[in-house]
Amino acid sequence: MQIAKVRGTVVSTLKDPSLRGVKLLLLQLVDEEGQILPIYEVAADYVGAGVNEWVLLSRGSAARKLDGSEQRPLDAAVVAIIDTVNVDNRLIYSKKDDYQ
Amino acid sequence: MQIAKVRGTVVSTLKDPSLRGVKLLLLQLVDEEGQILPIYEVAADYVGAGVNEWVLLSRGSAARKLDGSEQRPLDAAVVAIIDTVNVDNRLIYSKKDDYQ
Amino acid sequence: MQIAKVRGTVVSTLKDPSLRGVKLLLLQLVDEEGQILPIYEVAADYVGAGVNEWVLLSRGSAARKLDGSEQRPLDAAVVAIIDTVNVDNRLIYSKKDDYQ
Amino acid sequence: MQIAKVRGTVVSTLKDPSLRGVKLLLLQLVDEEGQILPIYEVAADYVGAGVNEWVLLSRGSAARKLDGSEQRPLDAAVVAIIDTVNVDNRLIYSKKDDYQ
Amino acid sequence: MQIAKVRGTVVSTLKDPSLRGVKLLLLQLVDEEGQILPIYEVAADYVGAGVNEWVLLSRGSAARKLDGSEQRPLDAAVVAIIDTVNVDNRLIYSKKDDYQ
Repeated sequence: MQIAKVRGTVVSTLKDPSLRGVKLLLLQLVDEEGQILPIYEVAADYVGAGVNEWVLLSRGSAARKLDGSEQRPLDAAVVAIIDTVNVDNRLIYSKKDDYQ
Repeated sequence: MQIAKVRGTVVSTLKDPSLRGVKLLLLQLVDEEGQILPIYEVAADYVGAGVNEWVLLSRGSAARKLDGSEQRPLDAAVVAIIDTVNVDNRLIYSKKDDYQ
Repeated sequence: MQIAKVRGTVVSTLKDPSLRGVKLLLLQLVDEEGQILPIYEVAADYVGAGVNEWVLLSRGSAARKLDGSEQRPLDAAVVAIIDTVNVDNRLIYSKKDDYQ
Repeated sequence: MQIAKVRGTVVSTLKDPSLRGVKLLLLQLVDEEGQILPIYEVAADYVGAGVNEWVLLSRGSAARKLDGSEQRPLDAAVVAIIDTVNVDNRLIYSKKDDYQ
Repeated sequence: MQIAKVRGTVVSTLKDPSLRGVKLLLLQLVDEEGQILPIYEVAADYVGAGVNEWVLLSRGSAARKLDGSEQRPLDAAVVAIIDTVNVDNRLIYSKKDDYQ
Protein backbone atom coordinates (compact mmCIF):
# COMPACT_ATOMS: atom_id res chain seq x y z
CA MET A 1 0.00 0.00 0.00
CA GLN A 2 1.02 3.60 -0.39
CA ILE A 3 0.51 6.49 2.01
CA ALA A 4 -1.59 9.28 0.48
CA LYS A 5 -3.20 12.57 1.47
CA VAL A 6 -6.81 13.35 0.54
CA ARG A 7 -6.78 16.41 -1.71
CA GLY A 8 -10.22 16.57 -3.32
CA THR A 9 -13.02 14.82 -5.14
CA VAL A 10 -14.01 13.68 -8.63
CA VAL A 11 -17.70 13.79 -9.59
CA SER A 12 -19.29 11.94 -12.50
CA THR A 13 -22.89 11.48 -13.67
CA LEU A 14 -22.32 9.33 -16.77
CA LYS A 15 -20.54 6.22 -15.51
CA ASP A 16 -20.71 2.48 -15.23
CA PRO A 17 -23.95 1.80 -13.28
CA SER A 18 -22.04 -0.19 -10.65
CA LEU A 19 -20.25 3.00 -9.60
CA ARG A 20 -23.42 4.81 -8.49
CA GLY A 21 -23.10 5.93 -4.89
CA VAL A 22 -19.34 5.32 -4.75
CA LYS A 23 -17.40 8.34 -3.43
CA LEU A 24 -14.29 9.04 -5.49
CA LEU A 25 -11.44 10.89 -3.78
CA LEU A 26 -8.43 12.48 -5.38
CA LEU A 27 -5.39 11.42 -3.36
CA GLN A 28 -1.83 12.63 -3.62
CA LEU A 29 0.89 10.17 -2.68
CA VAL A 30 3.27 10.83 0.23
CA ASP A 31 6.87 9.57 0.36
CA GLU A 32 8.64 7.76 3.21
CA GLU A 33 9.80 11.08 4.67
CA GLY A 34 6.32 12.58 4.68
CA GLN A 35 6.70 14.75 1.57
CA ILE A 36 3.80 15.10 -0.89
CA LEU A 37 4.72 13.60 -4.29
CA PRO A 38 3.52 14.80 -7.73
CA ILE A 39 1.66 11.51 -8.14
CA TYR A 40 -2.06 11.13 -7.62
CA GLU A 41 -4.71 8.45 -7.70
CA VAL A 42 -8.49 8.66 -7.86
CA ALA A 43 -9.70 6.06 -5.36
CA ALA A 44 -13.02 4.77 -4.05
CA ASP A 45 -13.54 5.70 -0.42
CA TYR A 46 -15.07 3.06 1.84
CA VAL A 47 -13.87 4.37 5.19
CA GLY A 48 -15.16 7.96 5.22
CA ALA A 49 -11.87 9.83 4.80
CA GLY A 50 -11.90 13.64 4.82
CA VAL A 51 -9.82 16.26 3.03
CA ASN A 52 -6.21 16.51 4.33
CA GLU A 53 -6.34 13.20 6.15
CA TRP A 54 -3.59 10.67 5.46
CA VAL A 55 -4.87 7.33 4.26
CA LEU A 56 -3.67 3.94 3.02
CA LEU A 57 -4.21 3.37 -0.69
CA SER A 58 -4.53 -0.14 -2.14
CA ARG A 59 -4.28 -0.58 -5.89
CA GLY A 60 -5.10 -3.30 -8.36
CA SER A 61 -7.55 -6.11 -7.64
CA ALA A 62 -7.22 -5.34 -3.90
CA ALA A 63 -9.61 -2.41 -4.51
CA ARG A 64 -12.35 -4.95 -5.17
CA LYS A 65 -11.94 -6.84 -1.91
CA LEU A 66 -13.98 -4.30 0.06
CA ASP A 67 -17.59 -5.23 0.86
CA GLY A 68 -19.80 -4.47 -2.13
CA SER A 69 -16.99 -3.57 -4.52
CA GLU A 70 -16.40 -7.06 -5.96
CA GLN A 71 -18.06 -6.31 -9.31
CA ARG A 72 -17.06 -2.66 -9.66
CA PRO A 73 -14.40 -1.61 -12.21
CA LEU A 74 -12.17 -0.11 -9.52
CA ASP A 75 -8.37 -0.28 -9.44
CA ALA A 76 -7.79 1.90 -6.36
CA ALA A 77 -9.42 2.23 -2.94
CA VAL A 78 -8.86 3.92 0.41
CA VAL A 79 -8.66 1.06 2.92
CA ALA A 80 -7.65 2.85 6.15
CA ILE A 81 -7.32 6.28 7.74
CA ILE A 82 -3.82 6.54 9.19
CA ASP A 83 -3.28 7.41 12.87
CA THR A 84 0.52 7.31 12.95
CA VAL A 85 3.51 6.57 10.72
CA ASN A 86 6.75 5.63 12.46
CA VAL A 87 10.10 5.34 10.66
CA ASP A 88 13.29 4.49 12.62
CA ASN A 89 11.41 5.22 15.85
CA ARG A 90 10.67 8.73 14.61
CA LEU A 91 7.03 9.86 14.31
CA ILE A 92 6.62 10.98 10.68
CA TYR A 93 2.90 11.61 11.00
CA SER A 94 0.33 11.71 13.77
CA LYS A 95 -3.28 12.43 12.90
CA LYS A 96 -3.81 13.99 16.33
CA ASP A 97 -1.02 16.55 15.86
CA ASP A 98 -0.88 17.22 12.14
CA TYR A 99 -4.47 17.17 11.09
CA GLN A 100 -7.06 19.72 12.25
CA MET B 1 -8.05 5.42 -11.36
CA GLN B 2 -6.36 8.06 -13.43
CA ILE B 3 -7.88 11.16 -15.03
CA ALA B 4 -7.47 11.16 -18.81
CA LYS B 5 -8.54 13.17 -21.85
CA VAL B 6 -9.95 11.46 -24.94
CA ARG B 7 -7.59 12.22 -27.83
CA GLY B 8 -8.52 9.79 -30.61
CA THR B 9 -9.27 6.25 -31.69
CA VAL B 10 -7.51 3.02 -32.60
CA VAL B 11 -9.08 0.80 -35.29
CA SER B 12 -8.28 -2.86 -35.90
CA THR B 13 -9.77 -5.53 -38.18
CA LEU B 14 -7.52 -8.48 -37.29
CA LYS B 15 -8.01 -9.00 -33.57
CA ASP B 16 -9.10 -11.43 -30.91
CA PRO B 17 -12.73 -12.28 -31.82
CA SER B 18 -13.93 -11.18 -28.35
CA LEU B 19 -12.92 -7.61 -29.18
CA ARG B 20 -15.37 -7.24 -32.08
CA GLY B 21 -17.64 -4.27 -31.52
CA VAL B 22 -15.50 -2.83 -28.71
CA LYS B 23 -14.65 0.85 -29.24
CA LEU B 24 -11.01 1.60 -28.46
CA LEU B 25 -10.13 5.16 -27.46
CA LEU B 26 -6.69 6.70 -27.23
CA LEU B 27 -6.53 8.60 -23.94
CA GLN B 28 -3.84 10.91 -22.68
CA LEU B 29 -3.35 11.08 -18.93
CA VAL B 30 -3.90 14.32 -16.99
CA ASP B 31 -1.99 15.25 -13.81
CA GLU B 32 -3.40 16.52 -10.50
CA GLU B 33 -3.09 20.13 -11.68
CA GLY B 34 -4.96 19.51 -14.91
CA GLN B 35 -1.94 19.34 -17.23
CA ILE B 36 -1.83 16.79 -20.08
CA LEU B 37 0.97 14.24 -19.53
CA PRO B 38 3.06 12.50 -22.22
CA ILE B 39 1.51 9.19 -21.16
CA TYR B 40 -1.30 7.49 -23.04
CA GLU B 41 -3.46 4.42 -22.79
CA VAL B 42 -5.66 2.68 -25.34
CA ALA B 43 -8.85 1.83 -23.44
CA ALA B 44 -12.17 0.16 -24.16
CA ASP B 45 -15.04 2.64 -23.98
CA TYR B 46 -18.24 1.45 -22.32
CA VAL B 47 -19.74 4.83 -21.42
CA GLY B 48 -19.82 6.65 -24.78
CA ALA B 49 -17.05 9.19 -24.21
CA GLY B 50 -16.30 11.74 -26.94
CA VAL B 51 -13.09 13.43 -28.09
CA ASN B 52 -11.74 16.04 -25.61
CA GLU B 53 -13.89 14.83 -22.73
CA TRP B 54 -12.17 14.04 -19.45
CA VAL B 55 -12.76 10.50 -18.25
CA LEU B 56 -11.79 8.08 -15.49
CA LEU B 57 -9.47 5.29 -16.60
CA SER B 58 -9.31 1.97 -14.77
CA ARG B 59 -6.44 -0.37 -15.50
CA GLY B 60 -5.66 -4.01 -14.87
CA SER B 61 -8.32 -6.62 -14.15
CA ALA B 62 -10.76 -3.78 -13.29
CA ALA B 63 -11.20 -3.31 -17.06
CA ARG B 64 -12.95 -6.67 -17.17
CA LYS B 65 -15.53 -5.86 -14.51
CA LEU B 66 -17.75 -3.98 -16.96
CA ASP B 67 -20.81 -5.83 -18.28
CA GLY B 68 -19.80 -8.07 -21.16
CA SER B 69 -16.05 -7.54 -20.83
CA GLU B 70 -15.34 -10.42 -18.43
CA GLN B 71 -13.71 -12.63 -21.08
CA ARG B 72 -12.06 -9.93 -23.19
CA PRO B 73 -8.26 -9.48 -23.10
CA LEU B 74 -8.56 -5.86 -21.92
CA ASP B 75 -6.28 -4.16 -19.40
CA ALA B 76 -7.76 -0.64 -19.59
CA ALA B 77 -11.28 0.80 -19.75
CA VAL B 78 -13.09 4.13 -19.53
CA VAL B 79 -15.44 3.75 -16.55
CA ALA B 80 -16.86 7.28 -16.17
CA ILE B 81 -17.13 10.65 -17.90
CA ILE B 82 -15.97 13.30 -15.44
CA ASP B 83 -18.21 16.27 -14.55
CA THR B 84 -15.91 18.03 -12.09
CA VAL B 85 -12.51 17.65 -10.43
CA ASN B 86 -11.98 19.55 -7.18
CA VAL B 87 -8.58 19.91 -5.48
CA ASP B 88 -8.21 21.96 -2.25
CA ASN B 89 -11.67 23.44 -2.89
CA ARG B 90 -10.49 24.70 -6.27
CA LEU B 91 -12.32 23.58 -9.43
CA ILE B 92 -9.61 22.03 -11.66
CA TYR B 93 -12.05 20.91 -14.32
CA SER B 94 -15.73 21.36 -15.09
CA LYS B 95 -17.20 19.63 -18.12
CA LYS B 96 -19.78 22.42 -18.47
CA ASP B 97 -17.12 25.15 -18.73
CA ASP B 98 -14.11 23.50 -20.32
CA TYR B 99 -15.58 21.16 -22.87
CA GLN B 100 -17.49 22.31 -25.95
CA MET C 1 -3.44 -1.29 -23.89
CA GLN C 2 -0.28 0.07 -25.38
CA ILE C 3 0.61 0.50 -29.05
CA ALA C 4 3.72 -1.50 -30.02
CA LYS C 5 5.74 -2.40 -33.09
CA VAL C 6 6.81 -5.98 -33.75
CA ARG C 7 10.63 -6.07 -33.77
CA GLY C 8 11.61 -9.73 -33.50
CA THR C 9 11.21 -13.08 -31.79
CA VAL C 10 12.33 -14.94 -28.68
CA VAL C 11 12.90 -18.70 -28.94
CA SER C 12 13.09 -21.13 -26.03
CA THR C 13 13.31 -24.94 -25.77
CA LEU C 14 13.44 -25.34 -21.98
CA LYS C 15 10.24 -23.76 -20.72
CA ASP C 16 7.05 -24.34 -18.80
CA PRO C 17 5.28 -27.14 -20.75
CA SER C 18 2.15 -24.97 -21.16
CA LEU C 19 4.15 -22.58 -23.36
CA ARG C 20 4.86 -25.18 -26.08
CA GLY C 21 3.64 -23.92 -29.41
CA VAL C 22 3.17 -20.33 -28.22
CA LYS C 23 4.87 -17.78 -30.49
CA LEU C 24 6.73 -15.12 -28.51
CA LEU C 25 7.27 -11.76 -30.18
CA LEU C 26 9.59 -8.98 -29.06
CA LEU C 27 7.61 -5.74 -29.26
CA GLN C 28 8.84 -2.19 -28.82
CA LEU C 29 6.37 0.33 -27.45
CA VAL C 30 5.25 3.35 -29.47
CA ASP C 31 4.25 6.70 -27.92
CA GLU C 32 1.15 8.80 -28.64
CA GLU C 33 2.98 10.67 -31.40
CA GLY C 34 4.09 7.52 -33.16
CA GLN C 35 7.70 7.47 -31.90
CA ILE C 36 9.36 4.18 -30.93
CA LEU C 37 10.19 4.12 -27.20
CA PRO C 38 13.16 2.37 -25.52
CA ILE C 39 10.69 0.04 -23.79
CA TYR C 40 9.99 -3.50 -24.93
CA GLU C 41 7.81 -6.42 -24.00
CA VAL C 42 7.97 -10.09 -24.96
CA ALA C 43 4.37 -11.05 -25.71
CA ALA C 44 2.47 -14.14 -26.83
CA ASP C 45 1.04 -13.72 -30.30
CA TYR C 46 -2.44 -15.05 -30.91
CA VAL C 47 -3.35 -12.97 -33.97
CA GLY C 48 -0.52 -13.75 -36.41
CA ALA C 49 1.33 -10.41 -36.31
CA GLY C 50 4.38 -9.92 -38.55
CA VAL C 51 7.60 -7.97 -38.12
CA ASN C 52 7.13 -4.16 -38.35
CA GLU C 53 3.37 -4.31 -37.88
CA TRP C 54 1.84 -2.14 -35.19
CA VAL C 55 -0.17 -4.08 -32.65
CA LEU C 56 -2.13 -3.65 -29.44
CA LEU C 57 -0.42 -5.08 -26.37
CA SER C 58 -2.40 -6.16 -23.30
CA ARG C 59 -0.53 -6.80 -20.08
CA GLY C 60 -1.27 -8.51 -16.80
CA SER C 61 -4.02 -11.08 -16.35
CA ALA C 62 -5.61 -9.84 -19.62
CA ALA C 63 -2.97 -11.90 -21.45
CA ARG C 64 -4.68 -15.03 -20.17
CA LYS C 65 -8.13 -14.16 -21.51
CA LEU C 66 -7.29 -15.35 -25.03
CA ASP C 67 -8.61 -18.79 -26.02
CA GLY C 68 -6.28 -21.49 -24.71
CA SER C 69 -4.05 -19.18 -22.66
CA GLU C 70 -6.00 -19.40 -19.38
CA GLN C 71 -3.47 -21.64 -17.64
CA ARG C 72 -0.30 -20.26 -19.23
CA PRO C 73 2.13 -18.13 -17.17
CA LEU C 74 1.80 -15.18 -19.55
CA ASP C 75 1.71 -11.52 -18.53
CA ALA C 76 1.65 -9.97 -22.03
CA ALA C 77 -0.15 -10.74 -25.30
CA VAL C 78 -0.75 -9.25 -28.73
CA VAL C 79 -4.53 -8.87 -28.96
CA ALA C 80 -4.97 -6.96 -32.24
CA ILE C 81 -3.14 -5.84 -35.37
CA ILE C 82 -3.71 -2.08 -35.74
CA ASP C 83 -5.17 -0.64 -38.97
CA THR C 84 -5.20 3.05 -38.01
CA VAL C 85 -4.39 5.34 -35.08
CA ASN C 86 -6.10 8.74 -35.06
CA VAL C 87 -5.17 11.54 -32.64
CA ASP C 88 -6.93 14.95 -32.83
CA ASN C 89 -8.32 13.94 -36.26
CA ARG C 90 -4.77 13.40 -37.51
CA LEU C 91 -3.78 9.97 -38.87
CA ILE C 92 -0.72 8.93 -36.80
CA TYR C 93 -0.50 5.48 -38.37
CA SER C 94 -2.12 3.61 -41.22
CA LYS C 95 -1.15 0.02 -41.88
CA LYS C 96 -1.95 0.49 -45.59
CA ASP C 97 0.49 3.39 -45.97
CA ASP C 98 3.24 2.74 -43.45
CA TYR C 99 3.70 -0.98 -43.53
CA GLN C 100 4.90 -2.92 -46.58
CA MET D 1 9.56 -10.06 -5.49
CA GLN D 2 11.65 -7.17 -4.31
CA ILE D 3 14.18 -7.06 -1.48
CA ALA D 4 13.22 -4.53 1.21
CA LYS D 5 14.36 -3.37 4.64
CA VAL D 6 11.89 -2.95 7.49
CA ARG D 7 11.94 0.72 8.52
CA GLY D 8 8.85 1.25 10.66
CA THR D 9 5.14 0.80 11.19
CA VAL D 10 1.83 2.32 10.13
CA VAL D 11 -1.04 2.31 12.65
CA SER D 12 -4.71 2.84 11.84
CA THR D 13 -7.93 2.61 13.90
CA LEU D 14 -10.49 3.51 11.24
CA LYS D 15 -10.05 0.91 8.52
CA ASP D 16 -11.73 -1.83 6.56
CA PRO D 17 -12.89 -4.35 9.23
CA SER D 18 -10.99 -7.17 7.49
CA LEU D 19 -7.71 -5.40 8.33
CA ARG D 20 -8.16 -5.66 12.12
CA GLY D 21 -5.19 -7.40 13.68
CA VAL D 22 -3.02 -7.13 10.54
CA LYS D 23 0.42 -5.65 11.26
CA LEU D 24 1.43 -3.08 8.66
CA LEU D 25 5.14 -2.48 8.16
CA LEU D 26 6.78 0.37 6.30
CA LEU D 27 9.45 -1.15 4.06
CA GLN D 28 12.08 0.59 2.00
CA LEU D 29 13.23 -1.17 -1.16
CA VAL D 30 16.83 -2.30 -1.62
CA ASP D 31 18.59 -2.49 -5.00
CA GLU D 32 20.62 -5.36 -6.46
CA GLU D 33 23.82 -3.95 -4.93
CA GLY D 34 22.33 -3.68 -1.48
CA GLN D 35 21.67 0.08 -1.48
CA ILE D 36 18.49 1.46 0.09
CA LEU D 37 16.24 3.08 -2.56
CA PRO D 38 13.92 6.08 -2.09
CA ILE D 39 10.95 3.79 -2.72
CA TYR D 40 8.76 2.40 0.03
CA GLU D 41 5.80 0.11 0.43
CA VAL D 42 3.41 -0.43 3.32
CA ALA D 43 2.99 -4.20 3.54
CA ALA D 44 1.12 -6.68 5.71
CA ASP D 45 3.48 -8.76 7.81
CA TYR D 46 2.68 -12.45 8.17
CA VAL D 47 6.14 -13.73 9.10
CA GLY D 48 7.03 -11.62 12.16
CA ALA D 49 9.71 -9.39 10.62
CA GLY D 50 11.49 -6.87 12.86
CA VAL D 51 12.91 -3.39 12.22
CA ASN D 52 16.11 -3.41 10.09
CA GLU D 53 15.60 -6.97 8.85
CA TRP D 54 15.72 -7.58 5.11
CA VAL D 55 12.60 -9.22 3.76
CA LEU D 56 10.99 -10.35 0.52
CA LEU D 57 8.08 -8.19 -0.61
CA SER D 58 5.34 -9.57 -2.88
CA ARG D 59 2.96 -7.14 -4.52
CA GLY D 60 -0.38 -7.36 -6.27
CA SER D 61 -2.78 -10.25 -5.83
CA ALA D 62 0.11 -12.34 -4.42
CA ALA D 63 -0.39 -10.46 -1.15
CA ARG D 64 -3.72 -12.24 -0.75
CA LYS D 65 -2.32 -15.76 -1.10
CA LEU D 66 -1.18 -15.88 2.52
CA ASP D 67 -3.39 -17.83 4.95
CA GLY D 68 -6.28 -15.65 6.08
CA SER D 69 -5.57 -12.74 3.74
CA GLU D 70 -7.73 -13.94 0.81
CA GLN D 71 -10.50 -11.40 1.40
CA ARG D 72 -8.39 -8.49 2.64
CA PRO D 73 -7.82 -5.41 0.44
CA LEU D 74 -4.03 -5.87 0.50
CA ASP D 75 -1.68 -5.26 -2.43
CA ALA D 76 1.63 -5.87 -0.61
CA ALA D 77 2.88 -8.43 1.90
CA VAL D 78 6.11 -9.58 3.54
CA VAL D 79 6.45 -13.24 2.54
CA ALA D 80 9.92 -14.13 3.87
CA ILE D 81 12.72 -12.91 6.12
CA ILE D 82 15.93 -13.06 4.10
CA ASP D 83 18.98 -15.00 5.39
CA THR D 84 21.36 -14.33 2.50
CA VAL D 85 21.51 -12.60 -0.88
CA ASN D 86 24.19 -13.80 -3.30
CA VAL D 87 25.05 -12.00 -6.56
CA ASP D 88 27.86 -13.29 -8.79
CA ASN D 89 29.03 -15.51 -5.94
CA ARG D 90 29.41 -12.43 -3.75
CA LEU D 91 27.49 -12.22 -0.46
CA ILE D 92 25.50 -8.96 -0.68
CA TYR D 93 23.67 -9.55 2.58
CA SER D 94 23.81 -11.99 5.45
CA LYS D 95 21.34 -11.67 8.31
CA LYS D 96 23.88 -13.19 10.72
CA ASP D 97 26.53 -10.56 9.96
CA ASP D 98 24.62 -7.42 9.06
CA TYR D 99 21.68 -7.46 11.42
CA GLN D 100 22.00 -7.11 15.19
CA MET E 1 7.44 -10.87 -20.26
CA GLN E 2 10.84 -9.34 -19.76
CA ILE E 3 14.25 -10.75 -20.69
CA ALA E 4 16.50 -11.20 -17.66
CA LYS E 5 19.88 -12.64 -16.73
CA VAL E 6 20.32 -14.90 -13.71
CA ARG E 7 22.71 -13.19 -11.29
CA GLY E 8 22.35 -15.01 -7.99
CA THR E 9 20.12 -16.45 -5.29
CA VAL E 10 18.11 -15.37 -2.27
CA VAL E 11 17.87 -17.77 0.70
CA SER E 12 15.30 -17.62 3.49
CA THR E 13 14.44 -19.91 6.41
CA LEU E 14 11.60 -17.92 8.01
CA LYS E 15 8.98 -17.64 5.29
CA ASP E 16 5.42 -18.42 4.35
CA PRO E 17 5.19 -22.24 4.61
CA SER E 18 3.98 -22.49 1.00
CA LEU E 19 7.39 -21.23 -0.17
CA ARG E 20 9.33 -24.20 1.24
CA GLY E 21 11.34 -25.86 -1.50
CA VAL E 22 10.88 -22.99 -3.96
CA LYS E 23 14.18 -21.80 -5.46
CA LEU E 24 14.42 -18.02 -5.56
CA LEU E 25 16.71 -16.48 -8.16
CA LEU E 26 17.91 -12.90 -8.34
CA LEU E 27 17.50 -11.77 -11.95
CA GLN E 28 18.68 -8.58 -13.58
CA LEU E 29 16.62 -7.26 -16.47
CA VAL E 30 18.06 -6.93 -19.99
CA ASP E 31 16.97 -4.27 -22.49
CA GLU E 32 15.99 -4.72 -26.15
CA GLU E 33 19.62 -4.22 -27.24
CA GLY E 34 20.96 -6.81 -24.86
CA GLN E 35 22.29 -4.43 -22.18
CA ILE E 36 21.91 -5.30 -18.49
CA LEU E 37 19.62 -2.79 -16.73
CA PRO E 38 19.86 -1.60 -13.09
CA ILE E 39 16.53 -3.31 -12.39
CA TYR E 40 16.21 -6.65 -10.66
CA GLU E 41 13.54 -9.08 -9.64
CA VAL E 42 13.58 -12.01 -7.24
CA ALA E 43 11.68 -14.77 -9.03
CA ALA E 44 10.69 -18.37 -8.37
CA ASP E 45 12.50 -20.77 -10.68
CA TYR E 46 10.49 -23.66 -12.09
CA VAL E 47 12.65 -24.47 -15.11
CA GLY E 48 16.09 -25.04 -13.56
CA ALA E 49 17.86 -21.90 -14.79
CA GLY E 50 21.56 -21.44 -13.96
CA VAL E 51 23.67 -18.38 -13.21
CA ASN E 52 24.35 -16.20 -16.30
CA GLU E 53 21.59 -17.78 -18.38
CA TRP E 54 19.07 -15.50 -20.02
CA VAL E 55 15.50 -16.26 -19.07
CA LEU E 56 11.94 -15.04 -19.55
CA LEU E 57 10.42 -13.41 -16.48
CA SER E 58 6.66 -13.29 -15.95
CA ARG E 59 5.28 -10.98 -13.30
CA GLY E 60 1.99 -10.57 -11.47
CA SER E 61 -0.60 -13.31 -11.21
CA ALA E 62 1.11 -15.13 -14.14
CA ALA E 63 3.70 -16.32 -11.61
CA ARG E 64 1.02 -18.48 -10.02
CA LYS E 65 0.04 -20.28 -13.22
CA LEU E 66 2.95 -22.72 -12.99
CA ASP E 67 2.16 -26.20 -11.66
CA GLY E 68 2.07 -26.16 -7.88
CA SER E 69 2.41 -22.40 -7.48
CA GLU E 70 -1.31 -21.55 -7.48
CA GLN E 71 -1.49 -20.85 -3.74
CA ARG E 72 1.97 -19.37 -3.27
CA PRO E 73 2.40 -15.61 -2.61
CA LEU E 74 4.60 -15.18 -5.70
CA ASP E 75 4.54 -12.19 -8.05
CA ALA E 76 7.45 -13.21 -10.31
CA ALA E 77 8.61 -16.45 -11.92
CA VAL E 78 11.12 -17.72 -14.47
CA VAL E 79 8.99 -19.37 -17.17
CA ALA E 80 11.58 -20.19 -19.87
CA ILE E 81 15.31 -20.40 -20.54
CA ILE E 82 16.01 -18.39 -23.68
CA ASP E 83 17.81 -19.97 -26.66
CA THR E 84 17.84 -16.96 -28.99
CA VAL E 85 16.63 -13.35 -29.19
CA ASN E 86 16.23 -11.87 -32.67
CA VAL E 87 15.60 -8.16 -33.32
CA ASP E 88 15.35 -6.84 -36.92
CA ASN E 89 16.83 -10.13 -38.16
CA ARG E 90 19.87 -9.56 -35.96
CA LEU E 91 20.82 -12.16 -33.33
CA ILE E 92 20.96 -10.24 -30.03
CA TYR E 93 21.56 -13.34 -27.95
CA SER E 94 22.29 -17.00 -28.53
CA LYS E 95 22.66 -19.33 -25.58
CA LYS E 96 25.03 -21.55 -27.59
CA ASP E 97 27.44 -18.68 -28.28
CA ASP E 98 27.15 -16.36 -25.31
CA TYR E 99 26.74 -18.68 -22.38
CA GLN E 100 29.42 -21.08 -21.22
